[in-house]
Parts: sequence; C-alpha cells; structure tokens
Amino acid sequence: MLRIGMLTSGGDCQALNAAMRGVFKVVTNNAKEPVEFYGFEDGYKGLIYGKFRLLREEDFTNILTIGGTILGTSRVPFKTIHEPDEKGLDKVAAMKQTYYKLQLNCLVMLGGNGSTKTANLLNQEGLNVVTLPKTIDNDLWGTDMTFGFQSAVDIATRCIDEIHTTASSHGRVFIIEIMGHKVGWLPLNAGIAGGADIILIPEIPYDIKKVIDVIEERDRKGHRFSIIAVAEGAISKEDAALSKKAYKKKLANYEYPSVSYEIADLIQKATGREVRVTVPGHTQRGGAPCPYDRVFASRLGAEAGKMILDGHYGFMVGYRNREMVKVPLEEVAGRLKTIDPTARIIEEAKLLGISFGE
Amino acid sequence: MLRIGMLTSGGDCQALNAAMRGVFKVVTNNAKEPVEFYGFEDGYKGLIYGKFRLLREEDFTNILTIGGTILGTSRVPFKTIHEPDEKGLDKVAAMKQTYYKLQLNCLVMLGGNGSTKTANLLNQEGLNVVTLPKTIDNDLWGTDMTFGFQSAVDIATRCIDEIHTTASSHGRVFIIEIMGHKVGWLPLNAGIAGGADIILIPEIPYDIKKVIDVIEERDRKGHRFSIIAVAEGAISKEDAALSKKAYKKKLANYEYPSVSYEIADLIQKATGREVRVTVPGHTQRGGAPCPYDRVFASRLGAEAGKMILDGHYGFMVGYRNREMVKVPLEEVAGRLKTIDPTARIIEEAKLLGISFGE
Amino acid sequence: MLRIGMLTSGGDCQALNAAMRGVFKVVTNNAKEPVEFYGFEDGYKGLIYGKFRLLREEDFTNILTIGGTILGTSRVPFKTIHEPDEKGLDKVAAMKQTYYKLQLNCLVMLGGNGSTKTANLLNQEGLNVVTLPKTIDNDLWGTDMTFGFQSAVDIATRCIDEIHTTASSHGRVFIIEIMGHKVGWLPLNAGIAGGADIILIPEIPYDIKKVIDVIEERDRKGHRFSIIAVAEGAISKEDAALSKKAYKKKLANYEYPSVSYEIADLIQKATGREVRVTVPGHTQRGGAPCPYDRVFASRLGAEAGKMILDGHYGFMVGYRNREMVKVPLEEVAGRLKTIDPTARIIEEAKLLGISFGE
Amino acid sequence: MLRIGMLTSGGDCQALNAAMRGVFKVVTNNAKEPVEFYGFEDGYKGLIYGKFRLLREEDFTNILTIGGTILGTSRVPFKTIHEPDEKGLDKVAAMKQTYYKLQLNCLVMLGGNGSTKTANLLNQEGLNVVTLPKTIDNDLWGTDMTFGFQSAVDIATRCIDEIHTTASSHGRVFIIEIMGHKVGWLPLNAGIAGGADIILIPEIPYDIKKVIDVIEERDRKGHRFSIIAVAEGAISKEDAALSKKAYKKKLANYEYPSVSYEIADLIQKATGREVRVTVPGHTQRGGAPCPYDRVFASRLGAEAGKMILDGHYGFMVGYRNREMVKVPLEEVAGRLKTIDPTARIIEEAKLLGISFGE
Repeated sequence: MLRIGMLTSGGDCQALNAAMRGVFKVVTNNAKEPVEFYGFEDGYKGLIYGKFRLLREEDFTNILTIGGTILGTSRVPFKTIHEPDEKGLDKVAAMKQTYYKLQLNCLVMLGGNGSTKTANLLNQEGLNVVTLPKTIDNDLWGTDMTFGFQSAVDIATRCIDEIHTTASSHGRVFIIEIMGHKVGWLPLNAGIAGGADIILIPEIPYDIKKVIDVIEERDRKGHRFSIIAVAEGAISKEDAALSKKAYKKKLANYEYPSVSYEIADLIQKATGREVRVTVPGHTQRGGAPCPYDRVFASRLGAEAGKMILDGHYGFMVGYRNREMVKVPLEEVAGRLKTIDPTARIIEEAKLLGISFGE
Repeated sequence: MLRIGMLTSGGDCQALNAAMRGVFKVVTNNAKEPVEFYGFEDGYKGLIYGKFRLLREEDFTNILTIGGTILGTSRVPFKTIHEPDEKGLDKVAAMKQTYYKLQLNCLVMLGGNGSTKTANLLNQEGLNVVTLPKTIDNDLWGTDMTFGFQSAVDIATRCIDEIHTTASSHGRVFIIEIMGHKVGWLPLNAGIAGGADIILIPEIPYDIKKVIDVIEERDRKGHRFSIIAVAEGAISKEDAALSKKAYKKKLANYEYPSVSYEIADLIQKATGREVRVTVPGHTQRGGAPCPYDRVFASRLGAEAGKMILDGHYGFMVGYRNREMVKVPLEEVAGRLKTIDPTARIIEEAKLLGISFGE
Repeated sequence: MLRIGMLTSGGDCQALNAAMRGVFKVVTNNAKEPVEFYGFEDGYKGLIYGKFRLLREEDFTNILTIGGTILGTSRVPFKTIHEPDEKGLDKVAAMKQTYYKLQLNCLVMLGGNGSTKTANLLNQEGLNVVTLPKTIDNDLWGTDMTFGFQSAVDIATRCIDEIHTTASSHGRVFIIEIMGHKVGWLPLNAGIAGGADIILIPEIPYDIKKVIDVIEERDRKGHRFSIIAVAEGAISKEDAALSKKAYKKKLANYEYPSVSYEIADLIQKATGREVRVTVPGHTQRGGAPCPYDRVFASRLGAEAGKMILDGHYGFMVGYRNREMVKVPLEEVAGRLKTIDPTARIIEEAKLLGISFGE
Repeated sequence: MLRIGMLTSGGDCQALNAAMRGVFKVVTNNAKEPVEFYGFEDGYKGLIYGKFRLLREEDFTNILTIGGTILGTSRVPFKTIHEPDEKGLDKVAAMKQTYYKLQLNCLVMLGGNGSTKTANLLNQEGLNVVTLPKTIDNDLWGTDMTFGFQSAVDIATRCIDEIHTTASSHGRVFIIEIMGHKVGWLPLNAGIAGGADIILIPEIPYDIKKVIDVIEERDRKGHRFSIIAVAEGAISKEDAALSKKAYKKKLANYEYPSVSYEIADLIQKATGREVRVTVPGHTQRGGAPCPYDRVFASRLGAEAGKMILDGHYGFMVGYRNREMVKVPLEEVAGRLKTIDPTARIIEEAKLLGISFGE
C-alpha cells in the first residue's frame, strides 16, 4: 500500500488542480501496489490539525481546466512555524504526528517560496517530501518556470490591452499595477506583451524624474497617451537607498494605497496630465489555467508522480534548460530568483524603446 | 454635397468605432450626392475649437473589432456648457460657428447622458443633430439597450469568474466593485452571470446588517466563501436617507477609496472574515467589443445613416421592444433609466437566492 | 412532497446547466414542502427506459459556467416517437409509466423544436410539462430568444475574426460555414459581427452569379480578400425552386461535404481565386456559456421554477418584447421562427453593404 | 543610410506583425544613420516582381496585437525557385536585381522551413539576409521555439475544450484534427492541454487496432466519451511502412477528406459508436497573438534588429536553452525539428494515461 498526502499552500494560482491531477493519475495508473491519496485541507493547516479527506478518481475528473485548488489553501508563514499556535500546539510536531499517524509514504506539497521552506524543514525532520513549483510570480529558485506564471501573464496583458483602448481614446497616462511580489517577471512580460512604454520592476529601482521625462518626451513627439506597467513591488531609487529600518518607517506612514498611486500622483503633479491607476489584483491568480500552464503543470505532476513511484524524495520538481530536473529542497528553500538587470531580455526591451525609469 | 460632422463624447466604450463605421458606410454607400465626413477630435472640444479631420474609407477599415474611438473623446460637462472657457470663449456659439463654417448638414454625436443633453441643446439651437446611445452603464432613457453595455458585462463577469476560483481556494469573502455610475444594470447582470451571492445596486439601498447576515448564514451552511458584486454607486439605507447636503458632507470626509472598501471593512469587523476587494475599473470600458455590441452598434449606425439620408434630425436612435426607433432628443435629455426594484429580473434574482442586502 | 423530473433533449448547447440550476434553486429555495428532483439520463431515453438519478444541491454547485449538460442528452426524433423501439417497447407508454411510477408532479424539459413536440405530446397525454427554449439556432417559435444562441454567436464570430487575419494576409476568399439548422439567425448575427462581405442564409436563397459578382466587384475595388458567412442550411435559388422530391434526389448524389464546398468550388472556377472553407462545427455548441446566456438561462430557469411553485403547467417559458411569458406548448410545437427577408436587420445589413447573394 | 528590405513568406501566423515591429523599432531607434525600411508585398513575390512600399512609423502603430501580416504573404515553393515563371522570368536573378536596385543593406525574412531554404539560397548568392522563425508548427531546426506556435496551441486547445462539453453531453467519440504539417508539436501540446485521451502524431505511427482498444477499454470503465487529438499529418503504421511511391498512390485515390475521417470511419465501424470530426483548420493560424508570442516575437525582432545594427548577416535568430542565438542559415535550411518518440514529454504523457495508438 502506497499512502500519499497532498496539500496546496500559499496564495492559490491557476493549474494547481492540473498538477495534482498529474500526480494522482501517474501514481494510480502506474503503481504496482494499491494507492491511497489523502488531501489535506487548506494547506499546512490541514496537516497540522489533521483535516484531510481520501481523494478518489472522480475528484480529479474535469479539473484540468479549473483554476484554484480543490483542497483549499492558506498561508502559514514559515517564520511562525516554530511558534506554538494560540492553543499552545507545536505545529511541526503536529504535522509529523499526522504524517506518521496516517502512515504516509510521502507528502506532496504544491507551493511557492515560503511554503517550500516549510517543506524543506519537514524533509529535514525525516518526512519524505516532494514539492511542485507553484506561483504566478515565477520567483522560485531552481526552476526556469513555475506554473501559474503564464496564465497570470495572459490576464495582466489582457488588462493592459483593455486599458490601451481607453487610454488612447482619452489621451491619458495609465498605470497598471501588476503582481509579482518582490520580483519583476510578471510585470516585465505583461508589459512587453501589452506594449507598455514604461515598465517599473523591483530589480531596477526607478527615478521618478526619468519616468516623467519619458512621458513628456512622448508628449512632445505627439503620442496622446502612455502606458506604465508597475510591479506591485516597484521601488524608487531613493527608497532602495534607505536602510531597512528607515524604509519600514516610511511604509508605516505611507499615504497611498500602493506604489502605483504614489507614482501617479507625482506624474500628475509634474505634468498636469490626467493619470489613472488600474489594479487587476487577485484576478491575476484566478480563472482557468492557460494551455501552456496546463501542459507544464501536467508534466511537473507526472514527474512528481514518477519520483514517488521511484521513491526519490527530498526534491522540488523543476524545469531547467528545457529539461525536467530534481532540485534538492535545501537548495531551493529561502532563495529567490530575481531578474538580472543586465539580462538579455532587459537589453532587448530597452532596444525596443521601453524605459525602466533609470 | 452632404457634409456630416461626427464626434464621440464622454467616457469611451467598446463599439464606438463599430457604430461610426456603420454611419459612414450607410451614408457613403447609399447617398445620391457626394459625401464628406468630418471627424471632430476629442468630443465637443473638437467642435468648440474647430479641431477636425476629413474621414476617409481607410479610416473605417478594420475598426469593427477595435475598442475605443478613432476620434478621441473627452468630457465637457453639460452644466459648464454655458460658462465661457478660461479664455472667455462662448462654447455654444463656438460650436455653432464651427458647424456653419464647415457648412455641415448635420452632426452625429455618440454619447451618454450628459453628452446627449448638450446634443439636445445644439438641436434646439437649430443644428441638425442625430445621436447614438453610447454607454456601458445602459442608463440612457428612451432605449432598452446601449452599446458598450454587453461588452462591459462580459468583462465584469470574467472578473467575477476569476475571483471565484481564488475566493473558493482561500475561503474568503470577495467584493468586486463594478461600474455603472448611478444605476445598477451592469453589476446586476454581471452579478447574476458570475453567480454572486449578494448584489448591491444604487436602486436598492442596502442594510449592512442584512449583508452581514447573509454571509454568516452562508458560513453556517458550510459555504467556504461569498462573492459580493457591488455597484460603484451602491448606497446604504442610512446614506440614502441623508439630505443631499449631509451626504455630500459625508463624502467630503470619506475615509475609504470607494464604497466597496467601506463595506469590506464593516464585514471584516463584524465577522472576523478575510474580505478582499477587487476593482476592475477602466478595463470594463476597454478592449474589443463583444459580438453582441458589434451587431447592435452596426445596426444603430445603419439607422442613424438612414436618418441622415432621409433628412430626419433631432433624434437619438434607440431600441425599444425589439424595434429600432427614433427618440426625440428632448425626451432623452436629462432623464435616467434606472432599475425598478420591483422589476421581474430582480424578483427572479431573489428567487434564485441572491440577496440585495435589504 | 414535490417530485420533479428533469431532462435535456436534442443537441446540447451552452447554459443548459445554468438553466437547470435556476429551476433547482428556485424550487428548492422557495417550496413550502420537501422537494425531490429526478434527473433523467440522456434525454427522453432516460424517461423511456427509467434511467434517472436523484439530484442534490452539490450537483448544481459550480455549473453555472460549465457548458454541456450534467444529465447527458440524446436525440429521440419526434417522428419515431409513436413507433415501438427495436424491442417492441411503446415509447410513449413507457415515458408515462416512468412518470407515474415516480409519482412526479411535473416534468421539466430543456430542448429545441423536435423535443418540444414530444413535450407537447406528453402534455396532451396528461403529464404536467414545463419546457425551456434551448437551442443555438434561435429558431423556436414563441420566444424572441433561446439560450445557447448568443454563446454560439460569440464562437462563430471569433472564428470569423481569426479567419479574417489569415484571409487578409493571403488575399484569399474564405467561406465560414455556420450552424443554425434551417434558419439564418446564427450566421446572420455572426456574419454582421465578423464583418462578412456576403452572408448566405436559408431564408434568402442565393444566386451564385450574384455572389461571384460581389467578389469580382471587390477585386476591382482593390480589396484583397472576401469573407463569406454561409449558413449550413443555405440554399441556392435553383435548389429552392426544386420540388421536395427532386431536391432530395440531388442531395442523395451530392458530391460535396456541405453547401459551402459547392459554393467554394463554383467561385474558384468562376474567378480563379483561391477559396478556402472553414467549418467550426460542433465547437459552436460547446464551451462555457457567455454572460448573456448565463443571465438569460438563469432567468428562464427561475421562471420555470416559479411556474412549478404555482402549479402552472403546459407551457414553454419564453421571452417576448422584453418580458418573460408563458407560451402554451401546443402553440410552439412544430412551428419554426425564421428570419423575415424584409426584416429591419436585413435591410440594415444591406445598407451596410453586405450582400445576401440575391 | 541603412536600407532594409523586409518580407513575410509562407502560411501566415500570429505575431508576424509583432516581430516586424520589433525589428523596425530597434533599428530606427538605435541606428546611427538614417534608415529606410522597404516592405515587399506578398512574400518573395514582392521581391521577385519589385512590388514594395516604404514603411513608416505609423505602419507599426497598434500592430503588436494584430494577427496576420501587414505585408501580405504567399507561398513560392523552394523547389520551383530555379524554374522560370510563366513569362520566363528567372526568379532568383529577379530577386537579386530588386535587392541591388534598391541598394539594400540587408533583407529580413520572416518564414518557415521552405521560405528559409530560399533565404539561405539568397544568402549564398551574396545578399545579406536575416531570418526569423515563423510557424505555428514549431518544426524549424535550430530553435527550440517558433513564434505563432503558442497562439496556435491556445486556439487548438480551446477547440478541444469546446468539443469536450458536447462530447460529454452526447457520450460521443470526438476527433479534433490539429495542424502541424508533418510534425506533432501542436497536436501533442494541445492534446495534453485539452485532456485528450488519445493523441496521434506523425512521429509515432498509429495502429488503428490499438486506438480502438483504448476506446473500448474506456467504454468498459464507464467513460461516456473519448477525445482524440489527431495531427493533420498522422499516419498509420501500415501507411508508414509503404514505399514513398505506394503511399503517394494511396493518397491519390484517398476517399476521405483527411486522415481524421478515415480514423473516424474505422472506429465507427469497429465499435458502433457515434464518432464526430472537427477541423478548426485555418483558425489555428489566425487571430491575435497570445502574450507569450508577443513577447517572444518582440524579442526575436529585437535580436534581428541588433544583428542588423551590428552588420551580422546570414543567420536565423533562434532560441536555444533559454538563450537567444544566431543560427547559420545553411544549418537551418532543409532540416526539420521533429518530436523524438522517446522524449521525456512523450513518456510523461504516457504515464498520465494518454495513448499514442501504439
């Protein structure tokens, strides 16, 4: 008997179900012994508090194209994992207890950066763990791509497309604030795909004067409007130069809902132009996975299933140089994959005339 | 020689180009004399300041499916129309002067409520005016439908769809703030299409306690999440009972970015649930027109073209009881088409279990 | 106890599930007595052979946006309904027997023309029947609109949009064959929405010479390409003039896969132009319902539910002049809603320059 | 003065305009001397017959998101390139003459396999040539990816999605015939993304008995329907074993419109199941490019622009192991990138339970 626990952790994204379907199908189709899949509810919470259900074939029917996660998810921050919960429960011990009580052979975890740190911890504590790289941010170290990313690019780009017609009609400056946490992959790709004039990403702190220059230069050349794709984690050169403490203090007294509104305000004051902000927000992690993500998540799921069949544990399934690879969890945990400001794609974007506000 | 001026006014929407293409094609294909079309730039501003260009066939090629307006648009509030501009120019006189100088036979105006008031004024001043009902809000009196509306419903619904998967995964209460100005057509339709649990529209002021009741009742029944479609013009029973002055005063000191954030805050405080707000904003008026709007706008454009060929002026082209009709401008101007709270669609929605927060 | 049987019959379409969800929700939310819903499998077959299952709330969760039908469907032609099946079973008697055995209060049938004839028969046989107008063809008499239609228009239009770019790039004549059975609503609307140059519908038999003239005229004017939307039921003037017998004979020896290929062949021979045919086929009845259909089907479902609560039977729920109406089944059965060739929309399309091949 | 000729050749696809925009922007934004871009009409025909136009900035405005090619395209088969045309014109000499007459510094060619052979020939004849890998088939040697491919995957997958609901409702076997010429990239990816049960690709000749076995096995397990993604170039084991001559002879007398219809017929005869075929056809190369392709084509265009600025000629811009590379034209010309039947993605698909009819 092969007993497998599975959970999805952190912010949800598209293709979580597709990936889980892949794991389930590959293991149940190919295992030489009977298989039981236990789905933990709402991420690590389900593992901590022993909330789970047995998963059956029908649970995985027709979910390839459905966004979200059939298991539910939640955020259990890694930095609190060693703290007891409000009732004094030791979370790590509780997770191990659930694992052993169910006599699991392994735990499959679909999650992003923080969740993978916890997975690594459990692995070090002796559990058999396999993880899959889930995040629309594409910021997981050890893999060139994460599932959810391309679907989010599609949605963010569509948002820019829709703003494009109205920006053009009204001759406005429009800021679209795009997710991506502390890295710029999502705004960079959506920005290029949407034909943005300016793209501001965390990896390249911006100079607001340069941003304003670009807009005024576009005005002079007769362009009626400008589109700015701003990462939710975009940061000005000045803020980037602040000490961590000073920056925290600034944020504590921040008068804007988000960085985009600050940029909008400064542009409006400097140029007198109408500036509007649109925030697609959580839509970027919702809806049906795009075909790219369905294929990619199915493949990752298949590889994870194969690792379980082979008894290879302690790895994240990754994709590097167009090959599926096993990445040791300790290599992944706690490391962020950011954009190198000298990367070829940045250079190409600049050649195309896109400003990064430098 | 038939000389026709054309302009698009107010907030842009999908299918403006489709409608103008319809007018242009019908007149140029069927007129017995040579035709010249003048496109005024940026709405009434172009008419006031004499900024226009001659429109050619190629201007109308491939624009059936393109959102926005090739003429540009702007808002020139009706209530300021009789005030001189900053340089002392009499706007009404200036518009008439441009019209007569160009020896126009008529003016075609595509616009919503405010813009139609100005069109009516120009008509009363002796100009030949034909208007088309443009607005995503569907609030124009005299027509059952306006173009832009169905495209906006599609976008707002898609937004709810995308939020649906993430709300479900995280077990959250989600508010989607939907456009529609002071009427509820857009949030009502998108809310039903998106399977919202609660829909708050301006025509039915809400009681926040009832809203909270519904969410708690859903909790009790084991539903993990709730979706609330909130009109940007939604108003609480208390606020609706305020005098106009008192309400203005409240808004002046309003601490929330919009009504959705107030509702979110109150629900969060009362229930302890995580509540999130998503505002699709200007995306709702952008992007390609949906097929329904392309057909509808083309038909309206064709009817407007026919009215020009027939020399029938002073009307808005409308659609009533599945028939194309001519509605006298003085009937339309200044009247709003709101939802009757006892309408059949509201009754049906309630039977379906949707709460309006009453 | 209220016992309700439900089935979906004929070709499937989008929003069948949305409509059934509407019926179920309204009845179970509002009935004063306990309710049981029985879903018959695969249309009338389920009723004939007593194949059904009890439907529960969870069956209707998350299906508002899912195409197809959770009950399955099949075609049981009306003209064979009085014939015994291959085992000698009397179908009508069998359906009545299932109905009475389950002690049903009524039967809800979602179907098109043929299926409604059978529903009418059952009604005349004494069963309580309510029907909902399901068809992408929009050809049901007694209602201005059917659900599925607008979703199909969206898909057929998107197909034309996609063909448009490739037709333009290659300078080709392209025929898109659009569903609609023997009526032209679907190709007419998709054709206008997609900017077709020629639209051929069953209600206006075409003259191939006129079709060729239009293409050659477009060539002369320098247009690189032409788009022809052809109804699957399009018919030439010559064929329309044949006796029914002679026409059947022609079809029996027909050398083309469908009428579009005949038209393509004749144009190619006459003009020497490259002509291509695209047949979106069954995709037109598949995929997620568009927001319009979700609202419309939910409303129809709600009205059907209300009729059940009120004990009003023997009707199809219809929509006429923007009002929900009850249409007696005997009025609907066997009547087709076709396009009047002198209808305003046809006139408008002609003014826009669209040819109907007359 | 830098004079650049540009042409698009072969079947069109999405993102051709995006790629050309990239080349144009990068060169005109960054060249140190004046630049003139000449666009040849309809592929090599424009170069042969001297049909071209000067391209201006406005030609590249708003085309990032528009499918097709603003230059037009055509197929001029490589194998006829050395044959004189019907008027006796030497095509190769004519192309060189146009190039020299316009004093071009280089020629940019966007095309697939055949077109790249001609580009290589021109390069060997002394012209400066840069090419970009255009094809929905993804079969170009020397690059891991071609633009157009991902957009076509999206469209083919959406087609499978739409068929999925109707197949499920009616309990049918459905075949979707997917483009890809003689390679299986497109059907393989769309098939996995669409959840196909069977995928037939040219690289893995199928055994119809095995295909039928899979369908019958699914029947036995209670699955109501089956989805088969068939490459337009799929081939049976028997046909693959024929000599080239024998196979040509077979095709000459082929009674089916395409291979899918033959497979459908054989399944229907063997199983008695209803089998339907859907052919999305040219829609797969039409419509707006997906965000992935917009980014990818823009990047390729930028690299091609940089090569022109650097005076590096004789290369196709490619993408290998996540790096932009220059691939010598003589390496690319005449070589096909097919799927290795032992590739990891094939293995994964099999683990997932997908049959390749082996």
